[in-house]
Amino acid sequence: MLIGNQSWIFNSKPVILSSASVGGPFEASGAIAKDFDILHKDTWIGQDSFEKAERRLLEEAVEIAIQKSGLKKQDIQFFISGDLLDQIISSSFTARTIGLPFLGVFGACSSSMEGLALAAMMVDGNYAKYVISGASSHNSTAEKQFRYPTEYGGQKPPTAQWTVTGAGASLLGRSGKGPRVTSATIGKVIDMGISDPFNMGAAMAPAAVDTIKAHFKDLNIDHSYYDIIATGDLGSVGHKIAKDLLQEQGIIIPENKFTDCGMLIYKPEQPTIAGGSGCGCSAIVTYGHFLNRMKKGELKKILIVATGALLSPLSYQQKESIPSIAHAVSIEM
Amino acid sequence: MLIGNQSWIFNSKPVILSSASVGGPFEASGAIAKDFDILHKDTWIGQDSFEKAERRLLEEAVEIAIQKSGLKKQDIQFFISGDLLDQIISSSFTARTIGLPFLGVFGACSSSMEGLALAAMMVDGNYAKYVISGASSHNSTAEKQFRYPTEYGGQKPPTAQWTVTGAGASLLGRSGKGPRVTSATIGKVIDMGISDPFNMGAAMAPAAVDTIKAHFKDLNIDHSYYDIIATGDLGSVGHKIAKDLLQEQGIIIPENKFTDCGMLIYKPEQPTIAGGSGCGCSAIVTYGHFLNRMKKGELKKILIVATGALLSPLSYQQKESIPSIAHAVSIEM
Repeated sequence: MLIGNQSWIFNSKPVILSSASVGGPFEASGAIAKDFDILHKDTWIGQDSFEKAERRLLEEAVEIAIQKSGLKKQDIQFFISGDLLDQIISSSFTARTIGLPFLGVFGACSSSMEGLALAAMMVDGNYAKYVISGASSHNSTAEKQFRYPTEYGGQKPPTAQWTVTGAGASLLGRSGKGPRVTSATIGKVIDMGISDPFNMGAAMAPAAVDTIKAHFKDLNIDHSYYDIIATGDLGSVGHKIAKDLLQEQGIIIPENKFTDCGMLIYKPEQPTIAGGSGCGCSAIVTYGHFLNRMKKGELKKILIVATGALLSPLSYQQKESIPSIAHAVSIEM
Repeated sequence: MLIGNQSWIFNSKPVILSSASVGGPFEASGAIAKDFDILHKDTWIGQDSFEKAERRLLEEAVEIAIQKSGLKKQDIQFFISGDLLDQIISSSFTARTIGLPFLGVFGACSSSMEGLALAAMMVDGNYAKYVISGASSHNSTAEKQFRYPTEYGGQKPPTAQWTVTGAGASLLGRSGKGPRVTSATIGKVIDMGISDPFNMGAAMAPAAVDTIKAHFKDLNIDHSYYDIIATGDLGSVGHKIAKDLLQEQGIIIPENKFTDCGMLIYKPEQPTIAGGSGCGCSAIVTYGHFLNRMKKGELKKILIVATGALLSPLSYQQKESIPSIAHAVSIEM
């Protein structure tokens, strides 16, 4: 049901019956490598284009999540997915492979939680028994589409982030064992006028702050409700801005509780500059790392605030600033 | 609630409290010009880029729909929208203007009914009081992105369609006067191997057929339930294929009942080749033309089967075929 202005409470608490995350070689050298189901040795994933490689990552994540659940594909009603590529081809072509009724979403890197929020609504409202949602990104497809061909070797400023090569998927059902999706907050598009696509963390930070504030207000809770509040992929630059903006508004989330998926996925010695990004980032960190920690009993309640920079290469060329959004989903053990 | 494998019945029958459609000069010369709220005299809509023009069309449609309803913007919880442009910038930038919590969707030209189906679910399931959903397209933005710059004057084969310059929006609520959304069927991605982006009607026809069949099966009805069954924008070529495919499977929908939004929007003498297309097409024909006919008492029950060709210019260049999808929404007076 609707609570407050822009949030949903899922009274039936849909269960994440299974989840999967798949990554590439750079992720294999990262900080949460042990949380992946598959780590590929090369970024081509045996395909002849990076786009097909990204699609394969998403297909694998979805297939593994279904396998793990013990369900058959035909038990599942809907597949919800989004990615960064023009016309979300990774998701659409994966939907072709999977063969399930498909809802494509786009919220840039917030697509992961947009999908999970919609999946939880469908299960909670009896519009589905089982829904699988996923998101993917690939460093080489994103660099090529949004920036320069990687072969060009363009230098990057210290605010730039590293697009994750990987995909995550989760399978929701009405009952069973596992972490449960309890609420979600759908974000507004916030644009503070930042137009530098090498500083998306700064562009997205105000959206994350807006959604966190709305979530607390709508649910009448504060940070003490959660063990972890993790933004989608602001990276270290955006994370600091988000912390400052929250502080300015009197919301002080303790350091050990407020983190960012883009800051968790890689090791400090990896050349990721300000951290990870891409639709796959929050999907992998949530469906791999955080759910594992929940199952181990280390975390009971988490809030994932996936952030998305809603620019296109064309909107940037036309000198537009970067509209941003963040969707928050609460998962409890 | 879920009915069958891939359909939803909306027991509360969410009401379309208001709707709006906006178009350009070519649409003003079209067959349903009287069904538009605004018809612009030039395709730039007073903007300095076609992308901004498309966005302005969508903003106008949303603003007019809200105005007509007598509601205030803050009464409305969510805005759902999709369009054809890379990273759906028309929708995202409109969401920035409108300032409502935003869910971006992408199903190419099926986005209109994907959005309406999700909006109906939110209202039906008490996840929202009011939701506005929209979709847009612009001939010049689509030609530029998917085909050639219009200045190039490339010749087109007889199977090509004309992307509609326009936007449609509808505002759903729990109660009130107006046509009601009663059910929806979410489509699977169907790909019969057609890879010619100048023949999208043929690519999408099997998806429309698959969704129509699923809709009849899930709801245990046949065509006699509806006064009109209108596919999204197959155009005349795709429409004929859809009719033949349905016939092969023993589903014969009478000629006067089975139509296509892309065949209705323009006059035969306009050089649209096989008919209209684009996310705006089914949105405008549904929210303008069909809803007007329902209000006049000419139609009681309609099924809109919006079709989408899920290709990208890159997937085409990589020699992929065109995966297609169709989402059906039932509207009753």
